[in-house]
Parts: sequence; structure tokens; C-alpha cells
Amino acid sequence: MKILIVHAHPEPKSLNGSLKDHAVAVLEAAGHRVRVSDLYAMDWKAAADAADYGPHASSPLKVPLDSGRAFEAGELTADVRAEQEKLLWADTVILQFPLWWYTMPAILKGWVDRVFTYRFAYGVGEHSDTKYGERFGEGTLAGRRALLSVTVGGPESHYAARGINGPIDDLLFPIQHGILYYPGLEVLPPFVVHGADRLAPERYSAVVEAWEQRLLTLETTEPVPYRRQNFGDYEIPALHLKEGLEPAGRTGFALHLQH
Amino acid sequence: MKILIVHAHPEPKSLNGSLKDHAVAVLEAAGHRVRVSDLYAMDWKAAADAADYGPHASSPLKVPLDSGRAFEAGELTADVRAEQEKLLWADTVILQFPLWWYTMPAILKGWVDRVFTYRFAYGVGEHSDTKYGERFGEGTLAGRRALLSVTVGGPESHYAARGINGPIDDLLFPIQHGILYYPGLEVLPPFVVHGADRLAPERYSAVVEAWEQRLLTLETTEPVPYRRQNFGDYEIPALHLKEGLEPAGRTGFALHLQH
Repeated sequence: MKILIVHAHPEPKSLNGSLKDHAVAVLEAAGHRVRVSDLYAMDWKAAADAADYGPHASSPLKVPLDSGRAFEAGELTADVRAEQEKLLWADTVILQFPLWWYTMPAILKGWVDRVFTYRFAYGVGEHSDTKYGERFGEGTLAGRRALLSVTVGGPESHYAARGINGPIDDLLFPIQHGILYYPGLEVLPPFVVHGADRLAPERYSAVVEAWEQRLLTLETTEPVPYRRQNFGDYEIPALHLKEGLEPAGRTGFALHLQH
Repeated sequence: MKILIVHAHPEPKSLNGSLKDHAVAVLEAAGHRVRVSDLYAMDWKAAADAADYGPHASSPLKVPLDSGRAFEAGELTADVRAEQEKLLWADTVILQFPLWWYTMPAILKGWVDRVFTYRFAYGVGEHSDTKYGERFGEGTLAGRRALLSVTVGGPESHYAARGINGPIDDLLFPIQHGILYYPGLEVLPPFVVHGADRLAPERYSAVVEAWEQRLLTLETTEPVPYRRQNFGDYEIPALHLKEGLEPAGRTGFALHLQH
């Protein structure tokens, strides 16, 4: 396999840094090729702005259109082009990050905002009576897999079905479905470490063991079965899920899972 | 009223810039005081790192603890202290942003990551058998109100109950409940402009009129009735919602609404 790890933590000696280092070691020992985008070490620019689009930045700036024109001309900034090339090189993408305020840190969101440009990650494919662009099951990154590896400060019960923060699968849905599945990546079930703020040494060993297990089964793990957009489940162009496809009583994000 | 608008769009002439300018004009004309944090104009640093905590950055870095010690010593960086002071000055906070990849732009997430420090926005209050810290209905910003003003590229149907992106209220829950309600802000129903990528002039007039209406009723609009953490609805410390409090069949984020 060819694996890209995008890593977003400011402290190399953190749990996140350790999980990233361990992933590199385990995957390389298993004969895979690994590249790492260590966003803090790269001093990654987080804010998308006109400078990203060079001569294609119009005035007033149009983020989608200008980014798409710069992409098509091959004139996005070198840092963004490098990340797009890594995504096209990889067959598997791992995002390693701490859950800060219920989502990814700003530096990683800025990687998404700047790298997932129009014509690369969205605005891909034709619109017709049966297709609403290539996304959610199709797209530039189709055929590849993605995995979130997330550390969470609070205990698991706070993120359970009745937990005060909301279910972890719902908190991660906008990332897993909205960011990763959108441009075509198949998303594996997330690897989540709870109670990360106070991880006892014996629990750390168990976490590392579980992480190795996930890393060594990347190729055989079943992805989350999100519904594909253009294959009959949704009305086009309203993109409503057709009535009757879900189990009785199911609502919310989970509607978009096949069963 | 004293209103803080936190604005996150790189183009002053964008719809977001226009809604921000209009809010300032309407609110000042109504006799209110308004301050604006225009994050792009301020060249806001998005990535939380050791430099934020000055002499309180430990090695290895501990983001929560170090940020809390720097906060308590009054030695966070000047940009972060200024934003915390604005939040304490304001009685109402408006976040103005485009929905990028189903959440806020990186620069705004970086405002949250850096300004909402330990001991200021979390890690506040005591833990006991009946209290799990002061949050979700209590906290540093209790007694204040917040409002999201969000532009969304896609049509409303894609964000409806059965829409492919998931319901907009669920997409905004991690921000409204997890970021704003957490430190005590009461959250008003969001102002959402759909189809923002192709807004016809006549629709723009209707949007502006609806926006004015929301701005002029900030004081009388009922907040989203999220459940308070420490007042009997949740088991402590598991923070599970007690059984039987919700309407039959309700699941997911909506469990955390009173009814």
C-alpha cells in the first residue's frame, strides 16, 4: 500500500505524535510505503485566501471558481499542489488529530479548505437528470480509502448515544461523509481513543495494540456503507433520500448509511 | 446592546462581507454598540501552538493545562487576550461565515481553538456529585447570547431532514451546542442563507430584509432550548441523558433539546 498520513498536533511527544510515529513504523515494517504531512512541522498555512490562486484570483475573489481555474492551470501554490499530488499517489489516507471543540484543529481544517479545491475535490463531473456531479461515492479520489485516527479528551460515555456531546459517529459525520466520502474516498470506521487527556501507561499499551491491529487490517476492513449519490437512492436534483429506504424510525445522519 | 461580530471571509465584497457590513449599519442605527473582529483583515493566526502560551508553554506542550496557566497569569498573547476581552464586553456574539466543507473556515476554527482556552471557556467550575464543571448552560459566558449567520452554497433541499448533506441543524450542532453553549452562551436559531453561490439580485433583497429582521429582534428571539447539564437531566458523571425525558423515538443531537 501507499499511505499518506496527515498529522495535526503541535507537540511531537503528544499521544497524537506517538500514534503517528507508530503508524509509520508498523506500516513500513509491513512493507508499505508511507508519506507524512506533519502540518505543524510544515508550518502549514491554514487560511484560504487570494494568495492561493496566484494570477487566477479575481477581484472580487470567488473562492470556488478561482481555485478551480488555478487548479486546472496547474498554478495553485506549491504547498497545495504537493498535497494534491500526495493524495493522488496514496491508496490510503490517514488523518491523525485531536478532537478540539468537537472537530478537527484549525490547521487541519485549513489543509482541507486549501487542498480540496474546486475541480479537484468538488465541482467534478457532469450534471444531468441522473447525475449530480461526481461525489459521494464517485470523484477524483474514488478507489482510495481513508481513516480518521482521533484522540478525545473526555470519556466515552459523554460521546455515547445518550451522551451530552452527541454520538461520536454523528460528530465525525461531517468529516467522514462531508469531507472524505464527498470526493470519493471510502471511509473506514474511525479509530477513536477516549480519555486521552489522562491515559494511564497500561491503557496506552492497549491503545497501541489496538492501533497496530487497525493498521495491519487497512486493506481488509469494511468501509462505512454510505449511500452513493447517483445510483438510485436519492431524488435528483433535490438530493432527498427516497422514501422507504431506511429502517423504520431512523433519522438524521444515519439515513445515509445503507443497511 | 453590545455586539461582537466575528467575521471570517477573505473577500470584503462577498455576500458574507456584505451581511457583516449591513449588520454593523443596522445595529448602530438602532443605537447599539458594535465591535467587529474581521479575522482575515486582522491576519488572525489560526494554529494553536506553544507560542500562544509564552513562558507557560511546558515541554512537552500540554495544550489545555498550559493555556489555562497562561490565561490565569494574564500572559496569553495580546491577540488572544483582546478577543477574550471582547467576549466579556459583549452581551451578544455573532459569528458570520460561509459553510466550507460542512463547518466553519479554518481561520474561524483557529479563533475558537486559540481564544476558548482552558479556565476561560472550559475547565471552569468544580466537579462534585451534582456538578460536572460549569458548562452547557453555565460558564464564563453565561448570560450572553450568540447567533450564527451562515452562507451555504448548496440549495436548502440538500440540507433538509432527508437531504444528502444531513440536516443543517445537525451540521451546526457541534458549533452551536459544542462551541457556543458549552461556555454558557445562549444560542439563537441560526440565520442561514442557502444557494449563496448564485444569489439573484431579487433574492439578495429578501435576504437583507430577513437579516435586518433577525438583527432587530436579537433581544426578543427565543434561544434554542438546549438542556442544561447540571440541573437534573443528565446522570453525573456519565453525562448520559436520563431515560424517558425525550419524545418517543427521538435520537441523536436532538435529544439535547428540551421540549
